[in-house]
Amino acid sequence: MQAAASDTQSPEQVDAVVVGAGPAGLFQAFQLGLQGMRAQLVDALPFAGGQCAELYGDKPIYDIPAIRACSGHELVQRLCDQITPFAPGWHLGQRVDGVKTLAQGGFLVTTSAGTQLRARCVFIASGVGAFEPRALKLPGLDAFAGTQLLHHLEPGASLSGLRVLIHGGGEAAVQQAIACASAPEHLRAAHITLQHRRDSFDAAPLLLEQLQALRATGRIEVATGMASAIVQESGRLAGLEIITPEGQPRRLALDRLIVRLGLVPRLGPISDWGLQLERKQLLVDPATMATSVPGIHAVGDAITYPGKRKLIVSAFHEATLAAFAAAEWLAGGPIPLEYTTSSKRLQGLLGLTPDTD
Amino acid sequence: MQAAASDTQSPEQVDAVVVGAGPAGLFQAFQLGLQGMRAQLVDALPFAGGQCAELYGDKPIYDIPAIRACSGHELVQRLCDQITPFAPGWHLGQRVDGVKTLAQGGFLVTTSAGTQLRARCVFIASGVGAFEPRALKLPGLDAFAGTQLLHHLEPGASLSGLRVLIHGGGEAAVQQAIACASAPEHLRAAHITLQHRRDSFDAAPLLLEQLQALRATGRIEVATGMASAIVQESGRLAGLEIITPEGQPRRLALDRLIVRLGLVPRLGPISDWGLQLERKQLLVDPATMATSVPGIHAVGDAITYPGKRKLIVSAFHEATLAAFAAAEWLAGGPIPLEYTTSSKRLQGLLGLTPDTD
Repeated sequence: MQAAASDTQSPEQVDAVVVGAGPAGLFQAFQLGLQGMRAQLVDALPFAGGQCAELYGDKPIYDIPAIRACSGHELVQRLCDQITPFAPGWHLGQRVDGVKTLAQGGFLVTTSAGTQLRARCVFIASGVGAFEPRALKLPGLDAFAGTQLLHHLEPGASLSGLRVLIHGGGEAAVQQAIACASAPEHLRAAHITLQHRRDSFDAAPLLLEQLQALRATGRIEVATGMASAIVQESGRLAGLEIITPEGQPRRLALDRLIVRLGLVPRLGPISDWGLQLERKQLLVDPATMATSVPGIHAVGDAITYPGKRKLIVSAFHEATLAAFAAAEWLAGGPIPLEYTTSSKRLQGLLGLTPDTD
Repeated sequence: MQAAASDTQSPEQVDAVVVGAGPAGLFQAFQLGLQGMRAQLVDALPFAGGQCAELYGDKPIYDIPAIRACSGHELVQRLCDQITPFAPGWHLGQRVDGVKTLAQGGFLVTTSAGTQLRARCVFIASGVGAFEPRALKLPGLDAFAGTQLLHHLEPGASLSGLRVLIHGGGEAAVQQAIACASAPEHLRAAHITLQHRRDSFDAAPLLLEQLQALRATGRIEVATGMASAIVQESGRLAGLEIITPEGQPRRLALDRLIVRLGLVPRLGPISDWGLQLERKQLLVDPATMATSVPGIHAVGDAITYPGKRKLIVSAFHEATLAAFAAAEWLAGGPIPLEYTTSSKRLQGLLGLTPDTD
């Protein structure tokens, strides 16, 4: 056995990067596998499934062909199961920050986690975009992002001695307040405020009960009112100004502001990659799903072409055409159509027939 | 209750006729259902599934999205299950013989069984064509079709006193010979010959054993040689001329010739419907799957457009676009996209929510 030649600084050379691990990206990885190409899946979310898992994970879908009903989670599980033989690379919890065309051919893909991949082809299956925390929009607030303004808390982070204000009225905000109030004593904040415009929260009954109990003991204070401005003192974020339901201004002192307003999709940096867009959507050739940059294909809800419908069933077809087109582009000529039912070669790729030499 | 007004001669008025009940046609019926249109499925085969059931019913398919492996039969069963809420009409074992554009709008569809349907729209999902018995090509033979030349035998048909020659080397021919030899005595042929170019048959071991046993008792004679000509006497088909493996001519006397060479797909009459073809395939607009005749759409293996791949996953997408396009054509304007996960209207069509008035 030889030592792996991995002691260089050069980015890993891969067949294909798939941006987005929702149903479109997952089936893209499958179709690439059938073309003998291994996919590297990148997604901003820390799990596979994208919008399908995030927005309707537990809700039933009825129009996946030959599956009468399945939840978003089940669909994702089935697609993940199907791509197992092709062992895709996973790069979750990171956003693709840039895609650069290389002079020697191929693309350099860089993610928010610093991952660098040199890919022969890129497939954008980013749907309506990477999911990002929905922002609280108040003049001057952005300047504190990452220091006093947070959108999530690392597990085990210490808030000891700090006044924490959690902004939001949904499950994420309630959960965050409970988590802060239930932290071990040496990490726990000195004061925890949950602020929302109404004294009513949209969360599971069990969470609401816990919140009620923690309010009763004084561990969590609920402040009701509309956030109207931030309070700055000597360059620090010192508080949040709210207007109570009675129309009175009220100032809430804080050291940390944790905004938990849920996730919002952002097409984000993709719009800066120099690809042709039409009304914020990637314009593709419907025969190949090629974008305006050769070697970059796009499928699913991020794209448009005449007749496009934003349905999962169409994304499956688009991923199939994109894989064929990329394989033909790389091969420099037509690729014959084979069927998984009859082709020993495809069955070999699927790991179904043992190697016979 | 009123008596049904079915005593007129006028053809039944229906929403949509789908020609072909393979995976493409079945999912077409599903997508039409989501558009509020009930499909009438017509297929030449006496069962649903088309090529998928006929050619690889028991073989696994690996590239249906989110279904890691399923047989052709299982796929068909799943699709039939999925369309149950839309209660499509079934017209099996009949070929569509003609589609006529009506002056008052819509189409008159006529089948080989005499069924007449007046449809607002027609969807061709006929795949590589209707399956027909593969013919034995010998000069003059066609003239006896339906009288002395048969391609299948009705159950209970009498061959009493007749010399029967079965032509073919596959399972269908072997099965036919065994069936003839096992018929009740009063229906059984006087003499049964199974003729094939080699003394070797491609059939399941159990059938080959039965054949062997029936040969041993003299109930079936096997004649080996290549069919070269027919023998006519006084306008009757009197025999089949074969060339034995030794190169000798031999004449086999017969009263009935049953040709069992399996099924072969034929695009058939569709090529006469005045639709624009390209290399024997229907040319469609990939945005709408519309053929050159407004109101007639086509999907699946029968069609072509730039980038077309003959895969089931593409047929599912095509059926979806075709249903939308037809619904918009009938409505005279755009139809908004709704999702089965969230739309109460679609869930109502799927029979999922009870009527609430």
